[in-house]
Amino acid sequence: MDDTHIGPNAIAAESIRCIVKLGGAAITCKNELEMINEDNLQTVSSQLRQAMIMGSCSNKVVGMDWSKRPGVSDISCTVGDFGDQAQLNVDFSEFIVVHGAGSFGHFQASKSGVHKGGLNQPLVKAGFVATRISVTNLNLEIVRALAREGIPSIGMSPFSSGWSTSNRNVASADLAGVAKALHSGFIPVLHGDAVLDNKLGCTILSGDVIIRHLAEHLKPEYVVFLTDVYGVYDCPPTEPNAVLLREIAVDEDGSWSVVNPEVENRNKQEYHSNLKSIVTLSKGLFFLRHHQHQVEITVAAHDTTGGMETKITEAAMIAKLGIDVYIVKAATSHSLRALSGELRHSIPADWLGTVIRFSRRDG
Amino acid sequence: MDDTHIGPNAIAAESIRCIVKLGGAAITCKNELEMINEDNLQTVSSQLRQAMIMGSCSNKVVGMDWSKRPGVSDISCTVGDFGDQAQLNVDFSEFIVVHGAGSFGHFQASKSGVHKGGLNQPLVKAGFVATRISVTNLNLEIVRALAREGIPSIGMSPFSSGWSTSNRNVASADLAGVAKALHSGFIPVLHGDAVLDNKLGCTILSGDVIIRHLAEHLKPEYVVFLTDVYGVYDCPPTEPNAVLLREIAVDEDGSWSVVNPEVENRNKQEYHSNLKSIVTLSKGLFFLRHHQHQVEITVAAHDTTGGMETKITEAAMIAKLGIDVYIVKAATSHSLRALSGELRHSIPADWLGTVIRFSRRDG
Repeated sequence: MDDTHIGPNAIAAESIRCIVKLGGAAITCKNELEMINEDNLQTVSSQLRQAMIMGSCSNKVVGMDWSKRPGVSDISCTVGDFGDQAQLNVDFSEFIVVHGAGSFGHFQASKSGVHKGGLNQPLVKAGFVATRISVTNLNLEIVRALAREGIPSIGMSPFSSGWSTSNRNVASADLAGVAKALHSGFIPVLHGDAVLDNKLGCTILSGDVIIRHLAEHLKPEYVVFLTDVYGVYDCPPTEPNAVLLREIAVDEDGSWSVVNPEVENRNKQEYHSNLKSIVTLSKGLFFLRHHQHQVEITVAAHDTTGGMETKITEAAMIAKLGIDVYIVKAATSHSLRALSGELRHSIPADWLGTVIRFSRRDG
Repeated sequence: MDDTHIGPNAIAAESIRCIVKLGGAAITCKNELEMINEDNLQTVSSQLRQAMIMGSCSNKVVGMDWSKRPGVSDISCTVGDFGDQAQLNVDFSEFIVVHGAGSFGHFQASKSGVHKGGLNQPLVKAGFVATRISVTNLNLEIVRALAREGIPSIGMSPFSSGWSTSNRNVASADLAGVAKALHSGFIPVLHGDAVLDNKLGCTILSGDVIIRHLAEHLKPEYVVFLTDVYGVYDCPPTEPNAVLLREIAVDEDGSWSVVNPEVENRNKQEYHSNLKSIVTLSKGLFFLRHHQHQVEITVAAHDTTGGMETKITEAAMIAKLGIDVYIVKAATSHSLRALSGELRHSIPADWLGTVIRFSRRDG
């Protein structure tokens, strides 16, 4: 199976509305091993539901997680609520959810070096198994949280769905399966995963790389990265004078510029050389321009899932496809606005986040 | 993706040793919702390990589940044990594990009627999501139990792996992905699952049907069904005079006979008409002979995952491929002998279980 490029027939005319990344840092407690940030996950799930059913008249939540939960005495099967099925026929617009690992999987991957390959070593093989256990556990919990909000979510673990890499570049992926799930009315939920690599033996495929690949082939209207900070800053956001970059434009030729806040001309050179994140972005685009086929080699080279560096590089490459990318803090009023798509027309002054978008030179 | 028939290149010359079905009734507490039979599962995992590493000199178990467990304070990461990696290089022979649902998934599937299709109904769609949550939860727990025994197990959920049906017959399945996982040294763990059906919308694909499909295309040396009874009886095994059928021969033309215990000639007709299970078996084979393409239509028509009727029909069809099938009680000395392959040469008199095998008319 090597269907990274699927024909137009595999995807219905109807376009996919949005691909959402649930950042690991936003939905897990990053410093506590395998601990979900339940409050954030619940709010994110509820916001996703609101965004998905916009325009639908039914607000009734039909829970779809009918399994036992620790600490909850009864299972919550709402079959009795299905009396008038017509009322419950909520149309969910086509979203794909991809989540990171946060405090799941990282420990197992970094202890064993799964991202560096070498599946013939017992430690790496054990780490591969352990990593997949941890990330599929998180995937199940996220699918359940979404299902409790009435979202018809379906876990589609990349390893099982035929995702594999060649020197960390996506080599195969069952995109037709994702499209088929979507068109059957489900919300596919993918995640960063340990996968086979035909050069290295194995590696970690980050959620960010998955998102770019999906965006390239399934052409969503927009992409939202939910994270634990308000967006992309000019220096680490913990620094007191960090400036949130509200809008970054990516040009046809791969050059980019910070559109908002505007930078005074005389300081431009100096300003840019101080932009830590943007230096990364620039490097990514430089690679994109000159070595189109090598750009992914830099991905996930120094940590197991990429971090902010990968996120911005991937986001810029998505924007170059003409797809708006919003990087926004999860579980805030700003994330709900981004998910709902209202930013597509104009960015309100009171919206906090970073938009990365494509701008034609003559635009 | 429609690769139910994969070319010989997709499968390495080295053949697959065994496909094992972990029956839902054997590994879960059938009468308690979503409750695993921990003792049985642990024994089954340990027996699987013994069977898989036969001939290997290392007996050291390297646990591969490094995740938190409820009620266990520490995660058991044995990275420190990887000092001398050479010693840990255990070769696992090629096994595929497929498990049933038992007390997972049944409730959700039967409440909503997922097996009957009709994905446009809100109740069915919700049940589809709820069923997948329940069975993937069980899959994760089984993968973890196997990993704790040092088996490099990898969950491959059928829905995500591109399994789908057409009027309940398998229409597509990523067998190349299963083969790739095997040849990378992993033990794929599949399960009965809710899948899309291109005629009905959706249905339940039972673990037994999965096993037959895998056996047909991957040609294992033998197949073991681990269940909660000693094998196939001539009437329900709860009845005091139930006779265990120790060996059933399936002929080239689809006819069958009970080879052991031998039936005296004069009672043969009467005996056979009293064989409840065998009437089923006969019906299955009758269909096989006269309506080759319709046989699967009868599968899972009256319950969501088939039960003993499906199991025997499927087992007989596997035997017709020339692959020995052992139906045996899980977590007993008999199951260990079946898993280890020692029955392939001859069936010891003290072994309890049912062998279904192919016998050429001239054999």
